[in-house]
Amino acid sequence: MARMKAAIFVEPGRIVLDEKPIPEVGPLDALVRVTTTTICGTDVHILKGEYPVERGLTIGHEPVGVIERLGSAVRGFSEGQRVIAGAITPSGHSNACLCGYASQDGAGTRHGWRAMGGWRFGNTIDGCQAEYVLVPDAMTNLALIPDRLSDTQVLMCPDIMSTGFGGAEKGDIHIGDTVAVFAQGPIGLCATAGARLMGATTIIGVDRLPERLAMARRMGADHVVDFSAADPVEAILEITDGRGVDVAIEALGTQSTFESALRVLRPGGRLSSLGVYSTDLTLPLGPFAAGLGDHTITTALCPGGKERMRRLMSVIESGRIDLGGLVTHHFKLDDIEAAYDLFSHQRDQVLKVAITP
Amino acid sequence: MARMKAAIFVEPGRIVLDEKPIPEVGPLDALVRVTTTTICGTDVHILKGEYPVERGLTIGHEPVGVIERLGSAVRGFSEGQRVIAGAITPSGHSNACLCGYASQDGAGTRHGWRAMGGWRFGNTIDGCQAEYVLVPDAMTNLALIPDRLSDTQVLMCPDIMSTGFGGAEKGDIHIGDTVAVFAQGPIGLCATAGARLMGATTIIGVDRLPERLAMARRMGADHVVDFSAADPVEAILEITDGRGVDVAIEALGTQSTFESALRVLRPGGRLSSLGVYSTDLTLPLGPFAAGLGDHTITTALCPGGKERMRRLMSVIESGRIDLGGLVTHHFKLDDIEAAYDLFSHQRDQVLKVAITP
Amino acid sequence: MARMKAAIFVEPGRIVLDEKPIPEVGPLDALVRVTTTTICGTDVHILKGEYPVERGLTIGHEPVGVIERLGSAVRGFSEGQRVIAGAITPSGHSNACLCGYASQDGAGTRHGWRAMGGWRFGNTIDGCQAEYVLVPDAMTNLALIPDRLSDTQVLMCPDIMSTGFGGAEKGDIHIGDTVAVFAQGPIGLCATAGARLMGATTIIGVDRLPERLAMARRMGADHVVDFSAADPVEAILEITDGRGVDVAIEALGTQSTFESALRVLRPGGRLSSLGVYSTDLTLPLGPFAAGLGDHTITTALCPGGKERMRRLMSVIESGRIDLGGLVTHHFKLDDIEAAYDLFSHQRDQVLKVAITP
Amino acid sequence: MARMKAAIFVEPGRIVLDEKPIPEVGPLDALVRVTTTTICGTDVHILKGEYPVERGLTIGHEPVGVIERLGSAVRGFSEGQRVIAGAITPSGHSNACLCGYASQDGAGTRHGWRAMGGWRFGNTIDGCQAEYVLVPDAMTNLALIPDRLSDTQVLMCPDIMSTGFGGAEKGDIHIGDTVAVFAQGPIGLCATAGARLMGATTIIGVDRLPERLAMARRMGADHVVDFSAADPVEAILEITDGRGVDVAIEALGTQSTFESALRVLRPGGRLSSLGVYSTDLTLPLGPFAAGLGDHTITTALCPGGKERMRRLMSVIESGRIDLGGLVTHHFKLDDIEAAYDLFSHQRDQVLKVAITP
Repeated sequence: MARMKAAIFVEPGRIVLDEKPIPEVGPLDALVRVTTTTICGTDVHILKGEYPVERGLTIGHEPVGVIERLGSAVRGFSEGQRVIAGAITPSGHSNACLCGYASQDGAGTRHGWRAMGGWRFGNTIDGCQAEYVLVPDAMTNLALIPDRLSDTQVLMCPDIMSTGFGGAEKGDIHIGDTVAVFAQGPIGLCATAGARLMGATTIIGVDRLPERLAMARRMGADHVVDFSAADPVEAILEITDGRGVDVAIEALGTQSTFESALRVLRPGGRLSSLGVYSTDLTLPLGPFAAGLGDHTITTALCPGGKERMRRLMSVIESGRIDLGGLVTHHFKLDDIEAAYDLFSHQRDQVLKVAITP
Repeated sequence: MARMKAAIFVEPGRIVLDEKPIPEVGPLDALVRVTTTTICGTDVHILKGEYPVERGLTIGHEPVGVIERLGSAVRGFSEGQRVIAGAITPSGHSNACLCGYASQDGAGTRHGWRAMGGWRFGNTIDGCQAEYVLVPDAMTNLALIPDRLSDTQVLMCPDIMSTGFGGAEKGDIHIGDTVAVFAQGPIGLCATAGARLMGATTIIGVDRLPERLAMARRMGADHVVDFSAADPVEAILEITDGRGVDVAIEALGTQSTFESALRVLRPGGRLSSLGVYSTDLTLPLGPFAAGLGDHTITTALCPGGKERMRRLMSVIESGRIDLGGLVTHHFKLDDIEAAYDLFSHQRDQVLKVAITP
Repeated sequence: MARMKAAIFVEPGRIVLDEKPIPEVGPLDALVRVTTTTICGTDVHILKGEYPVERGLTIGHEPVGVIERLGSAVRGFSEGQRVIAGAITPSGHSNACLCGYASQDGAGTRHGWRAMGGWRFGNTIDGCQAEYVLVPDAMTNLALIPDRLSDTQVLMCPDIMSTGFGGAEKGDIHIGDTVAVFAQGPIGLCATAGARLMGATTIIGVDRLPERLAMARRMGADHVVDFSAADPVEAILEITDGRGVDVAIEALGTQSTFESALRVLRPGGRLSSLGVYSTDLTLPLGPFAAGLGDHTITTALCPGGKERMRRLMSVIESGRIDLGGLVTHHFKLDDIEAAYDLFSHQRDQVLKVAITP
Repeated sequence: MARMKAAIFVEPGRIVLDEKPIPEVGPLDALVRVTTTTICGTDVHILKGEYPVERGLTIGHEPVGVIERLGSAVRGFSEGQRVIAGAITPSGHSNACLCGYASQDGAGTRHGWRAMGGWRFGNTIDGCQAEYVLVPDAMTNLALIPDRLSDTQVLMCPDIMSTGFGGAEKGDIHIGDTVAVFAQGPIGLCATAGARLMGATTIIGVDRLPERLAMARRMGADHVVDFSAADPVEAILEITDGRGVDVAIEALGTQSTFESALRVLRPGGRLSSLGVYSTDLTLPLGPFAAGLGDHTITTALCPGGKERMRRLMSVIESGRIDLGGLVTHHFKLDDIEAAYDLFSHQRDQVLKVAITP
């Protein structure tokens, strides 16, 4: 049986490059030869043992590649086509999928719902930091890459861009809205870009690192706030003349950013939360208006599926936004352990790395 | 200057019946002779000093009455017409109103938004536990009572019914949804009725008092859960075969009910919060799916305005729901102090009292 | 190869009971032994040659039955389970499906959209007026029947109820709305029931046949208008005091009903069209307010998929609505030609027939 | 009584500059000294007698000016402030307003709805092609102009921009949508800009005049189609690879553009109609998918009110879009008859004219 290289979770603190058999292709699967992939903040949580996965699992959920082999029941695709698949790979047929909540896909459960059930790559099945990855439910998940787009150009689509834009979309941004985005890491930057794309006319990006604030402006922020230099709540209330924002997007996953997002929200505003939290959260009574402020709080897991990927690639292709600048470093798959080292320590102003098998 | 009787907040612990001048009518106002009103849980918070209002203020925000005199600029109404006004009396012209958030009306502020700004009666202006009440922005707020409906039949429209139905509406209930309603006081009962009216097919009412659980069934609950006899989260998960509910409505204002509402929610579900909280709230990490569950949490303040009142009265008139059973006791305005005593101590299985000047 | 009986389209004017091989089961299919089915108005259009299908096709798209055999890739179901499938059997994986437009499923097309593409039974593949039917994309389409429900109780779910309720849902009915439903055949009656279930408080049913108007009242109409006795537009404007309706549902498919629906609509109202038209339609300038009335016109094809079926069966199970009265006649499959004769001529006050193989 | 100059409708074919008394200020009004205004296509319909108004009426509904005097009941504004008011001046208190349909404002009617009732300037009350204009319901309608913006920069806000953007908004455009806009006059150009602002990634502008197609590209069109050189339906289907568009916006008001918009729509797509029609419209059976295509057709009248104006000015202020290029000609009020002559004959590549009293 042919073998391939893959980045494997061994134990907390250790993800190593190792060999594994190239997977068998089931009737609904596609085997994709990975040409480019990347590392996500979530992978670092796995590395550190903060998010538990099975030992021996291949990590990674952002694949760009070429169809190597198609399952016997797969129609509508051909071997050799360039494709991406989303970080979230819904089945398409669970009750959750049929309700429009594909990320909470409960295929295989009695009732069809499972929290985060759509996230399979590098979580419940082998991921794509490898030479090959098996894409499940291929007809739902394979999305053809337009010829004009390079691997690097579409590398943010499977997760970062889908998640960040999803935050803007869940915020239900309208033309003329004022939006604050807390944290300008890769996801926050994409949320900023998404807010711009939806017609917000005052966008405020909050972070601490100068290079991220500079990138926030490139992604569409009208104002940036360095929270190490000024209280961001006060700064935003001043920018908005005391009114607060229509939509606040949380893109980090801490009590501090979540709470600040609530504090800058006007009555009737929407708090769109993207972060992955690691502790209970507190809703402070005053900013929550004792439950009488007509506020809305939403959370989201990255939307997946081939139609989502098609749309995101159309954004890139239209030239509306250039996310190329988010890829700050390139590594060979053989050097992925070094890539993890750089990325997990956030050295050298890294935003995202590209990994090429 | 003619005088009238009014229930006045004197100091924490004391609301007394006293005399006041009948108010002057400004150009946009209507003076309404009150024929029936009621006491709200919020009034009890005021009585106890838990919600601060100015000393000397007339309490009460649920007026049924007859137009006594109209302001010089008011068109479209005549003296002698039977009317109600909502507990919330929006101006109609603030930015918040023009965005559809009339309860957060900021008329008079620089930017047009104020948290809870639409609540004026018995909060920032004199209320309706009196012989007369001045309705501000009368053209926005006076709603004609259909001839066939009695005062008692429409007495729940200004607040309880509008709030409770609002909870079902914010929950965005669809045909076939499963809904849990935590607490079956007057507002929770109306939320139960609202869920039924919107097409939920499995409605679960949670409370402790047998008479309230019995009333929950009358209002449309398919199941009732006595939380003093069983853990309501477990009971609801059992009723729903482990799936959880599509929509959970919180109608009390405590950490316990709020948290239970979150714990029974399926991924992608909606938590519609109606309660008035008195402490910070905690979002527990697990039920909140670490921020990845595609949950939505909404809060609401009672919707007001004449069109809202018209619609609610049409529900009563259509016979879809009979809220008459919620009025368990009747008092004269002269005896309002006794009514407060009964209502604030929840004696004698009281749900709502009717007060007639 | 085992054979079965099936109602087959031979040529315009002739649907006959004949024999066919029992179909082979592909990896994603389920073979269902039909226990009950029915005839739809659309089948009559096929019979008359007004809607073209291939000669030799088995007709029928409303199956109730038992799983006989499952495809090799189908998970989550067992042979012997009682199931229904919707008239519309979406793939679950096309772009249209992933956008929430499963009825316009374009699986197999380059871009993933096809008008009415989700309708396959008795249209592009063999239908269910037969002893057996092959359900495609079984994981997306098989819906388990709750034990307590009989075949007859769920017989309206696959098409009539889904379509009629869909008309109310597309109308975006809110609590307190006034709704007119034009035509009270089986679909119009279900639209009436759906409007009631969503909280409309003034529902006006329009038809000509006394038994249908009587049934309209049973399904929830507050008023009925016999259009042969009075101009329905005038009658509805009188009932609504000149205001018009919030939502008008068209359930027949003629210029006259479509136009009347527009004429009774208030500014800003919604016209939800369900009928299958056979000619171009005219939008008259005046009622269309020259394009300035903030009107919305929607059309719909029956929603399908197992989650939709689950929800509709939950409505039946909850006892909210009893559609049993719509089944006015029962036939054996052997007598289906007689059933077509009765149903296509609308004899004997027929609403729907049940066919049992 | 002081007098002022005003452009007055005398009879079909004649709008002349004449003198009138400066209006009296009622309690809810504001008298605004007009500093800039413009002529709308609708005014040309009035001029030609195609849209009937009372003889002697002052024409014009796009005012930019300075508050000269405030009514006695108006709060929150000061004399001397620079303001605009929308072409549509809703009361804020009618049932239509309270439902979010302010353009169909029925203040003064029994039930509170009137088709196009929000359009008062130059229709049912004196308009703003004059030295002064009386703004009704001033608290609802006066919108302060940010200091940095010139009259010309905000001149499109009251009507053209609000209407055009409204077409994109009614189309419910999402990130990644494909949108076609039929006709690239001032409103179509603003619809194009609005589609761009909402995140459409393939925008196709259709017109015949080269300067308008060039301007369409400046406003955000990715493709332009000259309908005099190619069949626009075929051209759009080719651009979209046979799929059709998600949203089609009609911005002219003819059968041809309306029908083309329908013909290029994918199943499940939205046709957002902005044009003012002068004849009955036909919905052709095939493109309408016989009523089974899950299509949505919306119409719209320009949204008004001060919050709308504030948002539109924030778009200008943010620099997202520059509509200055739409103002191709400048006239003094004294020369307004010449302006009408130029504009009504569409001479000299005119898009919009600025009129300064």
